[in-house]
Amino acid sequence: MADPRLAGQIAFLVEADKLKTILRRTPLSDASRLENSAEHSWHLALAAIVLAEYAPADVDRLRVLELVTVHDLVEIDAGDTFAYDAGELETKADRERAAADRVFGLLPAGQATRVRALWEEFEAQETIEARVANALDRLQALLLNAASGGGSWGTHHVTRAQILRRMLPIERTLPALWPLVLETIDQFSAAGVIQA
Amino acid sequence: MADPRLAGQIAFLVEADKLKTILRRTPLSDASRLENSAEHSWHLALAAIVLAEYAPADVDRLRVLELVTVHDLVEIDAGDTFAYDAGELETKADRERAAADRVFGLLPAGQATRVRALWEEFEAQETIEARVANALDRLQALLLNAASGGGSWGTHHVTRAQILRRMLPIERTLPALWPLVLETIDQFSAAGVIQA
Repeated sequence: MADPRLAGQIAFLVEADKLKTILRRTPLSDASRLENSAEHSWHLALAAIVLAEYAPADVDRLRVLELVTVHDLVEIDAGDTFAYDAGELETKADRERAAADRVFGLLPAGQATRVRALWEEFEAQETIEARVANALDRLQALLLNAASGGGSWGTHHVTRAQILRRMLPIERTLPALWPLVLETIDQFSAAGVIQA
Repeated sequence: MADPRLAGQIAFLVEADKLKTILRRTPLSDASRLENSAEHSWHLALAAIVLAEYAPADVDRLRVLELVTVHDLVEIDAGDTFAYDAGELETKADRERAAADRVFGLLPAGQATRVRALWEEFEAQETIEARVANALDRLQALLLNAASGGGSWGTHHVTRAQILRRMLPIERTLPALWPLVLETIDQFSAAGVIQA
């Protein structure tokens, strides 16, 4: 390809295809297999569109969609870090920073900085758009775990306190959805899927 | 759930999860398996972000991301229609309209109309945003077929003329990317993967 700028962009897009092979701990709603991080990111985008009315009115909706689209790309090298594994969480930042250097570095220089900044914005959790994207990320996992009959909660013996802590960004940023979260956790606690 | 509006939105999001089980004819870049329509939709969103500079400057970028996110949802009922199968294409419109009635109908009434309108906008190909989304859809399949060594072109004995016709939306809407398309088709024609 003659144009090195376009060549870098295409190389990045082809490399990004690997996110479809990174498996999360959450199953699909029919429990047929684990979800991968690419289709998960799409599901967040759909949730951002459908649940937009529960976010603060001044949220930049384009930014939220950009954030959810790129937020997991570093997993191509760093893998998916399980939310309830303290050991994995400890090394997460270093692994993901090295991954960001390589993956976003495939893009032309100026664009690499801009796209990487989306990932950094999501990670920093300082903007309202990053907080909405993060709250949707937590909610989507809850919906799939519930739909699949318990999902990673049962498989990995997660406690009610751990889940409540994990879901707190929803209470903070999408408070209208918090009763649904509590109701779901109560239901799976009562059924014995979620440990006390 | 007490709130029927939210209950409909959640039912829609859980139903949408099934798009992850709808397989396309295009393989992943590593040829390990076929791509599903949910991860494909995510890949289009990423391409829309990374290749935005090749689209007309007045394109509404939020709208493009919304369109690519919802454009394949009807496949949950209608299945993926292979671009090079004339028989399938003949029944596509009817199958997809019935699917749209059911799938978007899960949403609260006003929102069902708005989200369905995104799908209809993509299908009608009248707005520049729909044309950009469609051109990206064609390009992404080309990139995966090329990366996987020929993909559905070889498996399904597609001809050069069929592929060129299929790729025309790229020439029209993202003309700066057309040389890349021709170069790729030439390469796989010379290698005997694409039939004359």
